[in-house]
Amino acid sequence: MHTPLFEAVPNFSEGKDTTKISRITEAVRAVPGISILGLHSDADHNRSVLTFAGDEDSMLSGAVALAKACAAELDLASQSGEHPRMGVLDVLPFVPLEGATMDDAVRLARRAGETLGTLGFPVFLYGSAATASHRRALPDVRRGGYDGLASRLEDPLWKPDYGPETLDPHMGAVAVGARPFLVAFNAYLDTDDVGVAREVARRVRESGGGLPAVRALGFGVGGKAQVSMNLTDLRQTTIPVALTAVRRAADDLGASVESTELVGLAPLEAVLQTARHYLGLRELDAHHVLEMRLYGSSDSRSL
Amino acid sequence: MHTPLFEAVPNFSEGKDTTKISRITEAVRAVPGISILGLHSDADHNRSVLTFAGDEDSMLSGAVALAKACAAELDLASQSGEHPRMGVLDVLPFVPLEGATMDDAVRLARRAGETLGTLGFPVFLYGSAATASHRRALPDVRRGGYDGLASRLEDPLWKPDYGPETLDPHMGAVAVGARPFLVAFNAYLDTDDVGVAREVARRVRESGGGLPAVRALGFGVGGKAQVSMNLTDLRQTTIPVALTAVRRAADDLGASVESTELVGLAPLEAVLQTARHYLGLRELDAHHVLEMRLYGSSDSRSL
Repeated sequence: MHTPLFEAVPNFSEGKDTTKISRITEAVRAVPGISILGLHSDADHNRSVLTFAGDEDSMLSGAVALAKACAAELDLASQSGEHPRMGVLDVLPFVPLEGATMDDAVRLARRAGETLGTLGFPVFLYGSAATASHRRALPDVRRGGYDGLASRLEDPLWKPDYGPETLDPHMGAVAVGARPFLVAFNAYLDTDDVGVAREVARRVRESGGGLPAVRALGFGVGGKAQVSMNLTDLRQTTIPVALTAVRRAADDLGASVESTELVGLAPLEAVLQTARHYLGLRELDAHHVLEMRLYGSSDSRSL
Repeated sequence: MHTPLFEAVPNFSEGKDTTKISRITEAVRAVPGISILGLHSDADHNRSVLTFAGDEDSMLSGAVALAKACAAELDLASQSGEHPRMGVLDVLPFVPLEGATMDDAVRLARRAGETLGTLGFPVFLYGSAATASHRRALPDVRRGGYDGLASRLEDPLWKPDYGPETLDPHMGAVAVGARPFLVAFNAYLDTDDVGVAREVARRVRESGGGLPAVRALGFGVGGKAQVSMNLTDLRQTTIPVALTAVRRAADDLGASVESTELVGLAPLEAVLQTARHYLGLRELDAHHVLEMRLYGSSDSRSL
């Protein structure tokens, strides 16, 4: 077995100054055992999303390096952008990857939160790491951004889980959470009618009585109606099953799916599920994939 | 970019004596830079197929370690089995993997052949590494096994490419080649009529006027008619395209495909092609697969 691995997808409040963004990213990259998987900076939102992975102790060191770099490079008091933000290091979710469970990710999030608290960040645990149900949903935690949080801080219901109980206007606060890996899968319809996409989304998502572990919204993107989905548990709903439901709902509404896209990263299992589904394969797992045998895991290397 | 990688799929003439098989395998595993990917021993055929991978220099060292171990452990004069064989190390094909071209695999095969020649093996290059068209097809090279080869050896057309021009009855000769990666993909039909499988195979394979880079045969396996395919170039014919042709041919003959199987290893690209095909994905490559970002290539690690 592998050492349990985790992914972190922190959002920090700088999307324009490439020198600062680079210094923050390099601070994380310098931590032994950390792989940087992605960086997406958005100038309009003045915000960057970094993706990195590693084992528990490396991730903890990575989180500390990230938080220190954000505090050193960024100043919330002089930052502005469309996106509501409550801190220089705004959100820090941990995701269980290979060999890790959600409980492992919760433990990691809490260890990271405790350490960030000692660095002077008020820390709010959210998602599966939340310590109260009203603090579970990220939008609730960061409602109103920095100012909203500042006004709630006197309320015992909004006492930080770790760190100071007052906000430093330069650093702000951070939401540290644990959540499942999300597969972001979009279907583009052969219509520009966003209403169709919204209705398809309503029918396929869990909250509309559709498929378990599916969130969906309808958008207009590049003149096409787009059904944008988050699959939060591939054991419950796979990509082919979600797509079949979208095709069926679109068909009911006189539309069809023209193309699809996977946004960001997908676990290999998502692709293997898809191949198994459509090919009728008796079995197909990571051990059948050449590259995974070459690079994947220590046990297959030592076959 | 990765260092170009290669796979070797040697066949050696021992399938029963697990001590000898293990010593031969361990000799290859001990070579730095070599990953053992698979070992399949067949007692009836008294033959083993080892799969290992690495960069060019590691593979050359692996081939030498393998040849020396086969010469030390095995004796062709006392060996018997159903499978025709011409040497203790019978066949040694090299396959280009990530970053490597067929020309690279040909160069590696010839370097390996030259070195094995100095160890006392008469070496016949075959496949893409062949030095004459009549020596390209492996069945032609090993026709008649050891005895057949012995009788041809006086013929200038069958002079070894490297090594002695006489056969040592204990070591025999070896065919060293370069060939493309094969994906072995089988479809099981809902009939026990092997004739249907044979007819489907005839229609889909390249030699029957079917799909390019597809070899196919019909068999009866476990009471089911099986269409057994080798896809020799996934850029020409993908798994979904081959399966669609099999389904259509089976349908014409009143049968249908019940299930499929991938035998051995498939490159990740085979799975990605399948997902792209059925999902209508705008794009999907190895960089979208989380595990490949975690383990895959040095460039993504250092993003």
